[in-house]
Order: sequence, then C-alpha cells, then structure tokens
Amino acid sequence: MKTLFLIGIGAGDPEHITVQAINALNRVSVLFVLDKGHVTEDLVRLRLQICERYIRKPNYRVVQACDPVRDSAKASYTQGVEDWHEQRAEVFTRLIDDELADGESGAFLLWGEPGLYDSTLRILERVRANGCSDFDYHVIPGISSVQALAARHRIPLNGIGQPIRITTGRRLVAEDLDNVVVMLDAHCAFQAFVQENVDIYWGAYLGTEDEILISGKLADVCDRIKLTREGARSRKGWIMDTYLLRRRIDTSH
Amino acid sequence: MKTLFLIGIGAGDPEHITVQAINALNRVSVLFVLDKGHVTEDLVRLRLQICERYIRKPNYRVVQACDPVRDSAKASYTQGVEDWHEQRAEVFTRLIDDELADGESGAFLLWGEPGLYDSTLRILERVRANGCSDFDYHVIPGISSVQALAARHRIPLNGIGQPIRITTGRRLVAEDLDNVVVMLDAHCAFQAFVQENVDIYWGAYLGTEDEILISGKLADVCDRIKLTREGARSRKGWIMDTYLLRRRIDTSH
Repeated sequence: MKTLFLIGIGAGDPEHITVQAINALNRVSVLFVLDKGHVTEDLVRLRLQICERYIRKPNYRVVQACDPVRDSAKASYTQGVEDWHEQRAEVFTRLIDDELADGESGAFLLWGEPGLYDSTLRILERVRANGCSDFDYHVIPGISSVQALAARHRIPLNGIGQPIRITTGRRLVAEDLDNVVVMLDAHCAFQAFVQENVDIYWGAYLGTEDEILISGKLADVCDRIKLTREGARSRKGWIMDTYLLRRRIDTSH
Repeated sequence: MKTLFLIGIGAGDPEHITVQAINALNRVSVLFVLDKGHVTEDLVRLRLQICERYIRKPNYRVVQACDPVRDSAKASYTQGVEDWHEQRAEVFTRLIDDELADGESGAFLLWGEPGLYDSTLRILERVRANGCSDFDYHVIPGISSVQALAARHRIPLNGIGQPIRITTGRRLVAEDLDNVVVMLDAHCAFQAFVQENVDIYWGAYLGTEDEILISGKLADVCDRIKLTREGARSRKGWIMDTYLLRRRIDTSH
C-alpha cells in the first residue's frame, strides 16, 4: 500500500501553511511538484521554498513532472475537461507507479484549498478507478485565495445571514452581483457590469511579495484593474487573481 | 495606537492553525477569549490549549469576557442581529479601552475563517465608527469547517466548473440542492428534502476528538444524522456541524 497526501499550501504566502500540512510534509518521502511550463516557474520555486523552510528531515525527494494543460480550443468545455483529466490521470498513474515504492508515501503540493476549483482529487479518484497500484490518500485543507482576498481587504465574504456564492469568470451573471466571489477569470468578466452599482475588491498574487490590491466602486476602478492586470501579466508572464463583487446597499432612503 | 488581530484558528483541530496565526499569537500581549456561557466551555478550553501549545513567550495575558448571545425570540431577524451587534460592540469597546494600553496589541481567537459567517469584523468596524479608542486591525485567515468537512470526506466543494454556494439552514431552498454547503443549521433543514435524489456529506465537531462523519443518499441517512446529532448535542451540551448536499447525476441513460 502507498499513501498520498493532497496538501493545501496556501494562496502564496509561505506562512499560510498549517501545522497539519507541515507535519504531513515531514511524513512523506516524495514531493510531487507539477509544472505547467515556463510561465509557472515562479510557482514551482515558491513550492520548493516552502519545502526547504518547513521540512526538517534531510532525506526527501522532489519529483517534478509536466502537468498537461487543458486545451481550451476544444469545441465542448465538458469534452475539453474530460480529455484533460484523462491526460492528467495518466501522468499521475506513472508518478505513483514509478516514483513510489510500496509502503512509501508521497505528497502533492496544491495552491489554495484542495476542495476549491482544484481537480487533483478527481484525478486521484480516476486513477483508482483505472485500477492503478493500490493507494490510500488524505486531504489537508489550505488557505484559499478567496480567504486571502477577504483578509487583505478586511471584508466579510458574506452579507449578514446571506448566502455566499463563488463562481468562475466564465459563469458570472448579473443575478450574482449582490455578493459573489469570482475565481479563474482570464477575461475580466467584471467589465460587463460596469454600469451596475457594485463595489469590487480585487487582488492578484495574493500573499506574495508581488501582491496587488485594488478596491472601489466598479465604475471607478474597472479600467485601473484591467490596466494593472495586463501590465503585471506581461511583466511576470502569468497572473493569478480573484475578486469579490458586492452590490451597494442604498441607504439614502 | 493599539493593534488588533482577528485570528482564524481553524475548525477544531489545533493543527489547523497556520504559521501566520502562530506568529500573530506570539506578537500580541493580550488574548481575548469570548465565552457564550457554560455550553462553550469546551471551546474556550480548546482555545487555551492552542495558546499553550503555540505561544513561546511567557508574558501574555488571557482576558475572558462574556459574549452576548443573539435573542432569537426577536420578531425581526434583522432587528435581532442589529441589537446583538450593538451589544457586542459595547463589550468590544470596553475590552479595547480597558484591557489594552496604547501601543499594545491584542488578538481575538476565532473559530474557522474570520470572513465566513463571523461577525467580529463587522463589530470592529462598528466600534471604530462609534469613535472608541484609536486602533488598527489585521485579519489572519483560518481553515473553516467547510474546508475541514470537504477534506475529511475527501470531496471537492464544487462540481466541475460549477459555482459553489454556501448558505445557512434558515435560507436553504430546493433550488440549492444541485450543490450546496450548509452552515449554522440548528434545525436539520435537510430533512425537508429527503424525497430528493441528493447525497449528504455531514460532519460534526470537525477536527476534534469527538468528530462524527456520516455520508450517503439523504433518504438513507437522514434519520441516522438526526438521531446522532441529537444524541451528541445532549451528551456534550452543544454541537457544531455542517454539511454538503449534492444532487446525484443520473448516469443510467
């Protein structure tokens, strides 16, 4: 039997890591670091720094592998995701088969929270269903960028007694605007709602030394966010950002 | 100037705490522990254990205070919350005025994530607006019970590319059942949907030694959850639980 840990390591600040995650890092012999190509070299480096800082035992092994990227040109979103998950499952199967001996344990270091818009859990279930080598796995929760965003802007995620909605840029609709957190938005979906009476709380590279925070009435800061985002993305080669939109409550009557 | 830290200390497991939270705990001179009466003695004890385990310097002071409880008999929910927030603001004002000297810093130890259904942030804003003594504050995110629930059941919080909804028992409606996390549900709101084709992933006292996990088709486990919940609540005098409901996808055709 092999054991895997899916470890949430926080949104970018090495101090987001939990004691539970540190203890798990110190239990495993192999750390899997998946790399999506040169644009995420920074993210790989940050993960290795976390290992160096928190792992006390000397004899661990870091295995880097190339993580397939989803083909967004696919006609159907669902089919694109299906193919991508299958490709990732093949990579994971090879890693578990080739890099872990029976009785050994390994960890996948995941940004943010493993349960929130991260497909690693689904991939492992698929690998198990495919009948790859026998393994058990554990999930260690981590601070998500949603939480880092709220903390840095010092705002609650919900209105009093109100539901919380977290969605993707692709799915953002006008009905969400009372209060919604948006992740994975490569196309500034917020700009479609610049006429609405909403505030935006935006953050990029949250928790890292490159962190950028902008907030205000959407109409006032929309262009500034777009320009800042584009500038940072071309300078660094990648960007990770998230934001909360909240309708202003009219207190004038 | 005084400084306050709102520190998320995790859902119950002392190892949920982040390095950022530990460092903040070690920076402050006063730790505020608010107590809602005898039913939460366990929760106060757990917080003091966290302090003893992670605070390295000897000279910190723990200030316990009685936290007002919301009067749920109030005719209007909004007015009930408004009155309760005002009462809490008075307690907070007194604590900050009387227990912190100028230049000193203090921390509020909060279960879960300070941005998620926790009113401390709003109370502090209210205290500032009331013109109490000058202070600045920082928010340290923490692992919420939602994340602990997902990790212990090893499930993603969202369907592939789908939005996430988090709501309260009071607000749960049939339209939510595709995928919804429910918090603060004292009345087992899920039982109204026992005819629906949904799975439930339920957890109580998550992360503590009393943790209970139950999952399955709602119709099959509904009664078991209700009985288990009632038994645990009367045995311990309090319960904290949360659950995820997810509609089964019919793959038979």
